[in-house]
Amino acid sequence: MSPRKIGVTELALRDAHQSLLATRMATEDMVGACEDLDKAGFWSVECWGGATYDSCIRFLNEDPWQRLRTFRELMPNTRLQMLLRGQNLLGYRHYEDGVVERFVEKSAENGMDVFRVFDAVNDPRNMAKAMQAVVKTGKHAQGTICYTISPVHTVEGYVKLAGQLLDMGAQSIALKDMAALLKPQPAYDIIRGIKETYGEDVQVNVHCHSTTGVTLVTLMKAIEAGADVVDTAISSMSLGPGHNPTESFVEMLEGTGYTTDLDMDRLIKIRDHFAAIRPRYAAFESATLVDTDIFASQIPGGMLSNMESQLKAQGAGDKIKEVMDEVPRVKADAGHPPLVTPTSQIVGTQAVFNVLFGRYKKLTGEFADLVLGYYGKTIGETSPEVIKIAEEQAKKPPITERPADLLKPEWDNLVAETKKLDGNDGSDEDVLTYAMFPAVAPGFFKTRSEGPKSVAMTEAELKARQEAAESGTTTAAVGSISYKVSVGGREHTVQVERA
Amino acid sequence: MSPRKIGVTELALRDAHQSLLATRMATEDMVGACEDLDKAGFWSVECWGGATYDSCIRFLNEDPWQRLRTFRELMPNTRLQMLLRGQNLLGYRHYEDGVVERFVEKSAENGMDVFRVFDAVNDPRNMAKAMQAVVKTGKHAQGTICYTISPVHTVEGYVKLAGQLLDMGAQSIALKDMAALLKPQPAYDIIRGIKETYGEDVQVNVHCHSTTGVTLVTLMKAIEAGADVVDTAISSMSLGPGHNPTESFVEMLEGTGYTTDLDMDRLIKIRDHFAAIRPRYAAFESATLVDTDIFASQIPGGMLSNMESQLKAQGAGDKIKEVMDEVPRVKADAGHPPLVTPTSQIVGTQAVFNVLFGRYKKLTGEFADLVLGYYGKTIGETSPEVIKIAEEQAKKPPITERPADLLKPEWDNLVAETKKLDGNDGSDEDVLTYAMFPAVAPGFFKTRSEGPKSVAMTEAELKARQEAAESGTTTAAVGSISYKVSVGGREHTVQVERA
Repeated sequence: MSPRKIGVTELALRDAHQSLLATRMATEDMVGACEDLDKAGFWSVECWGGATYDSCIRFLNEDPWQRLRTFRELMPNTRLQMLLRGQNLLGYRHYEDGVVERFVEKSAENGMDVFRVFDAVNDPRNMAKAMQAVVKTGKHAQGTICYTISPVHTVEGYVKLAGQLLDMGAQSIALKDMAALLKPQPAYDIIRGIKETYGEDVQVNVHCHSTTGVTLVTLMKAIEAGADVVDTAISSMSLGPGHNPTESFVEMLEGTGYTTDLDMDRLIKIRDHFAAIRPRYAAFESATLVDTDIFASQIPGGMLSNMESQLKAQGAGDKIKEVMDEVPRVKADAGHPPLVTPTSQIVGTQAVFNVLFGRYKKLTGEFADLVLGYYGKTIGETSPEVIKIAEEQAKKPPITERPADLLKPEWDNLVAETKKLDGNDGSDEDVLTYAMFPAVAPGFFKTRSEGPKSVAMTEAELKARQEAAESGTTTAAVGSISYKVSVGGREHTVQVERA
Repeated sequence: MSPRKIGVTELALRDAHQSLLATRMATEDMVGACEDLDKAGFWSVECWGGATYDSCIRFLNEDPWQRLRTFRELMPNTRLQMLLRGQNLLGYRHYEDGVVERFVEKSAENGMDVFRVFDAVNDPRNMAKAMQAVVKTGKHAQGTICYTISPVHTVEGYVKLAGQLLDMGAQSIALKDMAALLKPQPAYDIIRGIKETYGEDVQVNVHCHSTTGVTLVTLMKAIEAGADVVDTAISSMSLGPGHNPTESFVEMLEGTGYTTDLDMDRLIKIRDHFAAIRPRYAAFESATLVDTDIFASQIPGGMLSNMESQLKAQGAGDKIKEVMDEVPRVKADAGHPPLVTPTSQIVGTQAVFNVLFGRYKKLTGEFADLVLGYYGKTIGETSPEVIKIAEEQAKKPPITERPADLLKPEWDNLVAETKKLDGNDGSDEDVLTYAMFPAVAPGFFKTRSEGPKSVAMTEAELKARQEAAESGTTTAAVGSISYKVSVGGREHTVQVERA
């Protein structure tokens, strides 16, 4: 029997640098790998999402739509894939359905093929509109299960959610493990459950981060359970808070009943490309190598550092232990939302408030919204006492309907607002940029004509940094430095540079 | 059914820092972890071997026997484990049987419990004497299969070797994958083969490096095949050319039919201990994160850099590609020895010679010895032509007997030689140190009384280095630096230090 072919989604262009380099990679550092990415045989290349879009306009002075068109042009043979936050699109609030439709249409038109649609609290109603819109364009709609661990999250619950996504038109199901919490056995059980309940031909994609060090084994068990496509990142952009290395995944299957058919020569070229690029982004590197603490604490690394800086700002840096103990209670009271953006920030900040000001004495607006249902319905039950407090403090009622149903059509307004901004080019794409990032878009439109501004080190800067680290004692070669120097008993201010 | 318990050997004290930090870790940086290592529930703690012994006397001015006694005292409840190069002991030549016996006796007496006995070319005759000696002391004799990939290495061959080791008195079999070449399926097949052929109760230990990124999956499959004990390293001393993280291994088994029963609170303390230590050895860190090239090239990273520096020294740095192409031929001609110390150096250097001077125009003494059988018998057939050339150049005959059979009793001689050395303390341990490292021991004996000399950075140096790397432009705080500086047109030599 010939081995079963496993598809691979390469993450180098989106989640890998988002997880490892604070999403700072510039398009100019990606284009050189595109031909090999296009011809290596990937099921898809993930290349777009909320953080990359945000980073383009906030840090890189790049038009994210231009980046997408560049990818489309350079990778004509490969499915381009994006991550879409359901009704939030790539922004941080719910959008009215008309805006969701426009966004999906424009993304498809500019070249997107696969839309991985997810919702932070796993509320299918928050994914439905985006999924419909994708189906309408004829592109691939992928429904997503955000994996987390809690007393109310069960294999059966995840399998049921998969069914709801399929009912909504999902052409495949993504099992998304953003915190590297998915262990081999539950992965096996969930995927087996999906396949046995809805049919072996239901396509299942698996996305795992590598933070906890266990998830390459998870991918192996996922495949044994019938998974069809897995997400990996080329080795030079892998591990730590990122993902499992593509080449290792390919190699580990040798002799098993599975194969990827990826072209290793192409993979090596892609690897070498990013191996040369990555050190120039060293300033944005995360220090994490392996961290299994999250299995016990349920607190992702990013959330922890966030809470720490909030406490420090309040002169209460010594209370981190108390806050960490408070997180599980707040999470439970909110109905056990998975702790990912934005719920991780919302729960974490409320835990900080509880410790600083007394439990639920002061709610953040976002936490009130969360418990009142304005982010959708969590799987666990929300504490009735906390709902009552939220209702009083926020002065609005709890809701049970789909949050976006409360919104009025807003497209024409957004068009009008965008037209007022200097440098807008009159396109629907610009309206969408403004809609999703109203605070950042105006500045970006103004400076867009100046072209991309990389935040990577130059080769010279990199070399200087490396030399400085190696010697630990020398003045590096970047420009000159002023010193106060005593010569013959007299003090001078002098310029010094490397000879 | 309760889950099957898998034993774990922790590598932090030996192979982890050997692989990640050039074996430079001082005993003083280990003792703080010993109580937790002793109480975490490990099957064994690996803590001694050739490179650590060498490093103690060469770089750290530490007596390796004292290190062993320290471990014994601080870890009274745990099996201490060492890696022993069979008839080579911890040195680089074959020793006469009497020396082998003494070494094993003294090691047992000083506290060693488990002897993992291996031979670079997998010749059982090179392991037999050491194994017998271990059995005689009543300690645990572990016979080792060095895993490699070649046209002549087969699952059946490895299973057969396991049988030979068991016949020699091995109480367990180690499957040792020093180059991270062991993929999940072959691991499964070899271990299943051993268990089915010799009985399910034959203890199998698995040792994998993590260089290629695939081997945590290998450990999973090894366990499914029946492996009893696996080697891992605490996460803060893991990955890259090192090993899979202990905590990740523990976590990944949740919900499967296997468990480790390790104490996670202890593991976290061990992790934190080494997380604080490791950065002070940054100067010795390897840069490798994941490297799957070895699957194709068969050339371990250390061997490659070795060949490169040899070529550069000859002004032929541009010939590395030719040399890499030559390696497989030389390896085949030598009967496909696994490429580990010392065979990797021997084969690599001969490949360099072949490219520089013409194929087999000039043989190294070691390569001649290898093909003439003086390192033992390789599994593949050695090229008759090359044997003939070696015989002519080295002016000695090929041998088929066990190499150590050619040696005469040498203990009394070694005692006499050692007694002549300043600073020797008259112990058998000193004789063994001199026997194994005759070039280094005399200097060590002389300086031993000065006590351990750590090569780690101090906390202050570490901080300075980190600041230098972060700024990339500043003079760091370690001491002062001399510059040539022009002030008012005149050149001065000045001392500069951070204000």
